[in-house]
This record gives sequence, C-alpha cells and structure tokens, in this order.
Amino acid sequence: MHRTKVRVVDADVLDANDTIARANRDDFTRAGVTVVNLMSAPGAGKTLLLERALDGLFEDAGVRAGVLEGDVAGSFDADRLSLLHVPVAQLNTGAGFGGECHLDANMVRSALPSLPLSELDLLVIENVGNLVCPAEFRVGEDARIMVCSVTEGEDKPLKYPLMFRACELVIVNKVDLLPVLDYDIERLFANLDQVNPGVPRMLVSARTGDGVDTFRAWLAGLPTRPRGSQVPA
Amino acid sequence: MHRTKVRVVDADVLDANDTIARANRDDFTRAGVTVVNLMSAPGAGKTLLLERALDGLFEDAGVRAGVLEGDVAGSFDADRLSLLHVPVAQLNTGAGFGGECHLDANMVRSALPSLPLSELDLLVIENVGNLVCPAEFRVGEDARIMVCSVTEGEDKPLKYPLMFRACELVIVNKVDLLPVLDYDIERLFANLDQVNPGVPRMLVSARTGDGVDTFRAWLAGLPTRPRGSQVPA
Repeated sequence: MHRTKVRVVDADVLDANDTIARANRDDFTRAGVTVVNLMSAPGAGKTLLLERALDGLFEDAGVRAGVLEGDVAGSFDADRLSLLHVPVAQLNTGAGFGGECHLDANMVRSALPSLPLSELDLLVIENVGNLVCPAEFRVGEDARIMVCSVTEGEDKPLKYPLMFRACELVIVNKVDLLPVLDYDIERLFANLDQVNPGVPRMLVSARTGDGVDTFRAWLAGLPTRPRGSQVPA
Repeated sequence: MHRTKVRVVDADVLDANDTIARANRDDFTRAGVTVVNLMSAPGAGKTLLLERALDGLFEDAGVRAGVLEGDVAGSFDADRLSLLHVPVAQLNTGAGFGGECHLDANMVRSALPSLPLSELDLLVIENVGNLVCPAEFRVGEDARIMVCSVTEGEDKPLKYPLMFRACELVIVNKVDLLPVLDYDIERLFANLDQVNPGVPRMLVSARTGDGVDTFRAWLAGLPTRPRGSQVPA
C-alpha cells in the first residue's frame, strides 16, 4: 500500500501584520523601489523636511521619489507635497471612531495601487504623527527614520523607548530654535544612546534648510534594487 | 397559578471602558474629588504647565491637588511633580510590546488605590502624549483639557479632529516662542472653530509663567463636589 508523504508545516511565527508587510516588501523588490518609513510626534516637521529633501532629489541624484501620506483626516500634507510634482497618495486612517493612530502593513497595501511603484526609486511613507504605535507595525520598509524636534524636550527617548530603538536614523529637527530654548542636545544624545546606542543622528532645520543637504544625500545613498529583482524565497 | 414578573433588560450600550469609567466617576464622586484629563502630543509641555499651575494652588485657593501620571515608560514626570509635595502616582503603560499609547478607564482604576482620593479636591490625570487615542477613552473625568504647542503648526485641529473636539478647554502653550516662529494664531483659532466651535482657549507659556495664573484660576473654579456626595442611580 502506498502512502503519500506527509509534509509537516510549523505554524509561522509571523503575525498577520508581518505577513502582509512581507508581501509589500516583495512588491517593492519586484518594482525596484526602496522604501523608508518616516515617523515622529505630531508637529515635529516631517512634511516640511520632506518638501525640502525631495526638492532637487531627482535633479541632484537622479532619484525618482514618491510619497505615501498617512493622516487621521484630511490631505493637507499630500496637497503640499503634490506641488513638488512627485507622485503622492493620501491614506486616511479616520474610518474608526477617532481614527487609527498609526499605519499598518494592510493599510499601506491598500494604497499601493494608487502609486506608480515601478516608476519610482524611492517611496517615502509618512506615518501618522505618534511616538508609540507606528513603531509596532512594520509595513515592508527598508529603513525607518525617526524625526524629533528640539521643542519636544530631551527626555523623549526614555519615555517612548521603542520608537527610538526601532529606527536606523534619528533626525533632530528645528535646530534653528536652539538659541531660544533651554535644550541640551548632549543630554538628548545620551538618552538616545541609552535606548539605541550609536544610532546615526543628524541635526537639521527644515525651516532654514540647514542640514537638509545631508539628509538628501542620505536618501540618495540608500541601497537601490534594480527593477525586477528576485524576491527571496 | 402564580407567575413571577419577568424583568426585561436592554443590553447596555456602554462598552466595557465606559462601564469602568462610570465606576471611576462614582468613586470620584464619593471621595469628593474633581478630575481633569490632561492630553497633548508628546513634548507639548503638559508637565511643566502642571508644575507651574499646581505650585501655589493650595496656598492661593485652598485646593488640594493630586496627580496621576501616565507614561509608556519611566517616572520622569512623576519625579518632577513629587517635588511639589502633592500626592503623585505613576501609571506605566509599557507592559505590551511597544506600550499602550493612551490611558483607559481600567488602567486609571488600577492606579486609584495608590492615591489618597478622599484627601484631594482635584485630581489631574496626565495622559500619554498622543493626539489620537487618548480622546477615545473616557476615564471618569469631569473635564478634558487639550494642550497644544505653537511649535506644532496651526493645522493640528484639522488633522486630529476628535482630540480637539473632545475637550472643554484648549491651552495653547509656548507662546513665548511666537516671535521666532512663522505661526498664525488666528489660523489656529479658525481651525479650532471648525472642529469645536467656540471652545474656550487660553494662551500660556509654562516656561515664562505667562498665562499660568489664568489656568490656575480655571482649575480652582471647577465645580466641586463635597465628600460623600451621592452617586447618581
């Protein structure tokens, strides 16, 4: 009597979000687009920073960028960015009672058909302004950037540790205000090193443009993937 | 043959959070303590504002205040406030993966035994810094205060509408920085009126102390409840 071979599959440890994040990532790989997830507290200046960094990114470095804007309500930031003539899609999370306080992989996936992925080299996903939940949900990105503002106080890495741990770059924005604030940047760095030792950090002022060139070069220097790259098994 | 009377109970529309919030409120009523829920984005300056407003509240107005501090991690703010010699309890939400991004009624309830409620006239609950979820969870408070900082941009009421709708007072903090910012306070007020028409608003600088007296008087003027008040049926 023949027996068919029984294949034993161990239950995957990935939860639903990670499964969808992996599917997003496979799509990004096939399209040859590098993806960054931009996170911060509300009002830290993500949008102005993006406006400044994306302006000239194609002219300077040949990088074709697009943006996925996450907000509870409205399309104020997307409208601003669309003036740069880059593809922008708006993703609103406000369908629930007060709205979702973060993007997850499934929300991002639902917005991908609105973007011409295969014509992009870089997709920036601007997350909902929040220092807690966005860090808990991978969306298929290659890198996570955390923007903090010097107006927020030096204690934030200790009070919101996961967010500052779950990123590859910390941008300290609004440094033009340092002369009028009681803010100790060395204390911020020490707090940062407590939760994410040695994480790269960059001082910028999106308003004056100070340091934006360095950030633009960082974006242009991200590892690229040629279109049609093979998806790892 | 006798029949017992059948009592028909309609399923209560309150969800679990509201049920517990009501239990908290009954406890506050019995103890004779008025409760405010203080909400803002991270770094808007809630703690410094509280330090300034509570300092002298007993001496000036005979109000005995206590504080319940909500944070993902650490007790930095509670440690600061304890210097004022008011009862302070720290409630950390970081037990989950990245921590909870808000306080809910059950978390608050778990912290109540740490506070001498019957010796207080006013309890301030400082929520986790977040512009989305704290507004979705009543905790049994009498009033909700929303603190926004002029460093965050004038668009926040439109981007996080529930938060600005679900409050009885909006405090605009850090007004000492207005001279060095491109910030249009009239635009903030117009945006505020779009989501919460006519909501009372107060301009303060917790750093310079400007406007703090007005806020202290507002706290002192909240309706009080004598200890042992009857809980409504």
